[in-house]
Amino acid sequence: MSMKRREFVSKAVAAGVTVGAAATASSFPKPAVAQARKEMIIVSTWPRDFPGLGISAQRHAARITELSEGQIVTQYFAAGERVGAFDAFDEVASGNAQAYNAADYYWKGKHPGWAYFTSVPFGMTTPEWNAWIKYRGGQELWDELGDQFGLKCLPVGATGTQMGGWFRKEIETADDLKGLKFRIPGIGGDVMAKLGASPVSLPGGQIYENLVSGAIDGTEWVGPYNDYFLKFYEAAKYYYYPGFHEPGGGLSFGINKSFWGSLTKWQQEVIKAACYEEHANQYEETIANNGIYLKKMIEEHGVQLRRFSDEIYDAFGEASMQVFEEIRQHSELARKIHDAFVDNLREIASWTAIAEVAYSVQRNRVLGIRS
Amino acid sequence: MSMKRREFVSKAVAAGVTVGAAATASSFPKPAVAQARKEMIIVSTWPRDFPGLGISAQRHAARITELSEGQIVTQYFAAGERVGAFDAFDEVASGNAQAYNAADYYWKGKHPGWAYFTSVPFGMTTPEWNAWIKYRGGQELWDELGDQFGLKCLPVGATGTQMGGWFRKEIETADDLKGLKFRIPGIGGDVMAKLGASPVSLPGGQIYENLVSGAIDGTEWVGPYNDYFLKFYEAAKYYYYPGFHEPGGGLSFGINKSFWGSLTKWQQEVIKAACYEEHANQYEETIANNGIYLKKMIEEHGVQLRRFSDEIYDAFGEASMQVFEEIRQHSELARKIHDAFVDNLREIASWTAIAEVAYSVQRNRVLGIRS
Repeated sequence: MSMKRREFVSKAVAAGVTVGAAATASSFPKPAVAQARKEMIIVSTWPRDFPGLGISAQRHAARITELSEGQIVTQYFAAGERVGAFDAFDEVASGNAQAYNAADYYWKGKHPGWAYFTSVPFGMTTPEWNAWIKYRGGQELWDELGDQFGLKCLPVGATGTQMGGWFRKEIETADDLKGLKFRIPGIGGDVMAKLGASPVSLPGGQIYENLVSGAIDGTEWVGPYNDYFLKFYEAAKYYYYPGFHEPGGGLSFGINKSFWGSLTKWQQEVIKAACYEEHANQYEETIANNGIYLKKMIEEHGVQLRRFSDEIYDAFGEASMQVFEEIRQHSELARKIHDAFVDNLREIASWTAIAEVAYSVQRNRVLGIRS
Repeated sequence: MSMKRREFVSKAVAAGVTVGAAATASSFPKPAVAQARKEMIIVSTWPRDFPGLGISAQRHAARITELSEGQIVTQYFAAGERVGAFDAFDEVASGNAQAYNAADYYWKGKHPGWAYFTSVPFGMTTPEWNAWIKYRGGQELWDELGDQFGLKCLPVGATGTQMGGWFRKEIETADDLKGLKFRIPGIGGDVMAKLGASPVSLPGGQIYENLVSGAIDGTEWVGPYNDYFLKFYEAAKYYYYPGFHEPGGGLSFGINKSFWGSLTKWQQEVIKAACYEEHANQYEETIANNGIYLKKMIEEHGVQLRRFSDEIYDAFGEASMQVFEEIRQHSELARKIHDAFVDNLREIASWTAIAEVAYSVQRNRVLGIRS
């Protein structure tokens, strides 16, 4: 594996894929401060130049170098350029790379607690999740989980409430989900399994071919802006909302903990600032673009927008509660994370219900905006 | 005025109110990089140590010094410590101070366009506004307006969708608003005037005394976390939601444009990062705390939570549209800002309607959370 990786890295470097700040900085003569400089290899679960997720991860890597005035030189490798998407975790935990940009729910096989640090069914929206992470103890629980694997994780991106996904046929009752081979990772996949579907986990770069070949019957990905470029509409026309499975939360910049400990306080603060900034950027860029791309898909590609019925939502809810009960049985830490998540969700959502939500419903009614 | 200010500054410095990074940094021996250092005096419309707004502004000032590794040394003056709250704009535009932390709608008398860069009736929620500012041309319009006054503004805080405010009596129909002396700044105040109320603009530090004395009949401020500490519940028990007048948006870090131009690219990027970070922080801190403080007020202080009816919301809507038409007549730039705001609102809100909003309504229904 390590031999193979070395070859891969050599090829990647030869091919000039270590773009951006790193490539530029390495050709500079070394200034007097070179001693203090840190090199930071970042691996990722996102394909290179992917609108939304990929571009965000690349922008973030370059931003660390910029904000640190070159004291932290990042080298970014997209999925497959150094290791495969799902090998990012081991690459960083082992110290072969210094950080990953990923969705932590990809690691739920290692510990189900990871899912709460991306997004879980019937969970928080992104602003609610941010409030939990920064001001209600979420980061401390993430740190406790990260400690078990030698990682320090920070929020680094968010796509907001996702669409329910792409289906070849209409989903009118929960029974219509039975037997579907549906690409959906994380706990959402476990919920779909309870409802009789066959969940499949595939990285973004492999979904299209599986959908077109018929190996899967449908897929969720993110939302109009991220999904548009993957052309799922060529193989599945029904696009459902709102997604129950990934209502918000965020992506993770997972840093090797020994490396994190070797940084100065200032270097750590610069990385935090770059993470928080990109966490907001990606969410805002997604919100800014989703409406436009949804319209394009409907008008230019015949996409049919559909809403999940209350009956299907009730079924999603019931199956989700069963899955959560199983997660709570996994370990002391899993129970602790789940219970803290749910307590905070109920309290924070009781507020947003009378604020952003109640307001948006009234505004949209008065202005005649779809709701 | 300048004589008076000099005295004020001397007293403030003597009293040790120039706390934080600045006071600490100035006692250090000057290192070799002292030449590159920039001093940055920040004035503010928020009282010192105010939970929410005040603490956020102080944290942001200290963060600029921290992230710049001491290359930008900030001195923060709360409202009244250097100039009064509403003198912050002139203090910075004239170059007497380098930046302010404020709500730009306080300057709507100078140009109505300023209101759109805080929050306007029936406008965007904070995430929607962020998307407009960063990715749909909002910042460019803010820059165009700022240019007319020698300012460069950046988002620096947000309180999310606000409560409708505090009333001594129940507001059951739009007629109940007639004759009310109500503290409400910005365009929201103009809308209240259309409905027969008498809007009053007062900085936060002066509301309580006016409410207790009966000089005003009611007030809006922010939401439970920010309002709790001002004890409005002692004089007005009815607390209405959702506020139509400030649904989101953000606060402004208004920087003297000549000073901004004198900074290096890196210094500018550090300030931007600190602003974006605090913009997210304040919003998340508010969301994290509002539910807790609302509960305290209801359980410990007999606060009565009330919802504005559809009929009242329709009246707010109609009056708002009249006020907007007047704003559009003000100038070419006012019309340009308004029209861009509304176009982007409709497009972005069409997305959030089927994402965060539709999801939250379903989740809250299934989980039995108030909505």
